[in-house]
Amino acid sequence: MRILLVGSTGVIGRAVAKALGSRHELIEASRTRAANRVDIADAASIRALLDRLAPLDAIVSTAGEAHFGRLAAMTLEDFELGLKNKLLAQAKLALIGQAYLRDGGSVTLTSGVLSRDPIVGGSNAATANAGLEGFARAAAIELPRGLRLNVVSPTVLAESWPAYGRYFAGFTPVDAERVARAYCKSVEGAQTGQIYPVH
Amino acid sequence: MRILLVGSTGVIGRAVAKALGSRHELIEASRTRAANRVDIADAASIRALLDRLAPLDAIVSTAGEAHFGRLAAMTLEDFELGLKNKLLAQAKLALIGQAYLRDGGSVTLTSGVLSRDPIVGGSNAATANAGLEGFARAAAIELPRGLRLNVVSPTVLAESWPAYGRYFAGFTPVDAERVARAYCKSVEGAQTGQIYPVH
Repeated sequence: MRILLVGSTGVIGRAVAKALGSRHELIEASRTRAANRVDIADAASIRALLDRLAPLDAIVSTAGEAHFGRLAAMTLEDFELGLKNKLLAQAKLALIGQAYLRDGGSVTLTSGVLSRDPIVGGSNAATANAGLEGFARAAAIELPRGLRLNVVSPTVLAESWPAYGRYFAGFTPVDAERVARAYCKSVEGAQTGQIYPVH
Repeated sequence: MRILLVGSTGVIGRAVAKALGSRHELIEASRTRAANRVDIADAASIRALLDRLAPLDAIVSTAGEAHFGRLAAMTLEDFELGLKNKLLAQAKLALIGQAYLRDGGSVTLTSGVLSRDPIVGGSNAATANAGLEGFARAAAIELPRGLRLNVVSPTVLAESWPAYGRYFAGFTPVDAERVARAYCKSVEGAQTGQIYPVH
């Protein structure tokens, strides 16, 4: 398969690249550091990348950052920007990307545990994650040509635990390698409209 | 209680007004037809209304419209506008409104069945609904002063069935009167961070 991985320089992205890269033609992209540059918050940037790379068999996103911060200090701008960068950006990648996929191709996006198990400071991420999951469940039933759409929803990563563990009291972190398997299931399997929690 | 009901002229709004109005001081608002006008997509409009009406014991929203239409024909503008008018608008009402509530007050928002049981044409609504539910679950744990936040998620209404029933194959519609009880539970009860499906 010819697979585009957006967000390939992040912790999850690197693990996904390792898991899928040995069996497939993997094309890495990210906003600032990968060989191919793309800002998925910007539709024109997505189209420019896909025009250059199509046709593809799979698009995987491990990109998109929500706003983290306490509700009491969160401005409406923080809240909107978080939705734009995590929820809307990945939804755009799917909405635009579907046209660049071969029949039977797939889109795999990334949400996260906070939509179902919230922490203090996580309300913007929870909104973005939950919205993305609702999008995937619904959009999947309308995709043409056997196209598929799934979301991976990992809990906090072991690799991020030293930096962020103090915000996740009582959570059990998982290795990025374990999380990467859910992306393999989505890309190499046949399911659609699924949310894959990884705990 | 002194309760602000935004969206009071809609089918659900009228039923909620009837259910809560006999026991409480109910203030009705909507974008174009109620005694008090507010556009909840506009933060300044929300603030102007609340500056005039505070203090309140409860804010209820039965307002907010997503975009309905097939995925294949949905533009990015349609998608963004739907999120803005249903998800962001109601989240804004909660984020701004909390400061205008008396201790122990509540915010009750409206999502809908499509986030868990999608139909063709419903992917934008599904995204907005799911996002709003994620927001409520997460924001509720951070609210100060005993403030509460819940979401009512009704299936298709019996009152709307003649117009929209053909899009909801196999769904069982419910009366708005039944849906209104979930708003009473949220406003007059003590739960928080809850999603109340009404089927």
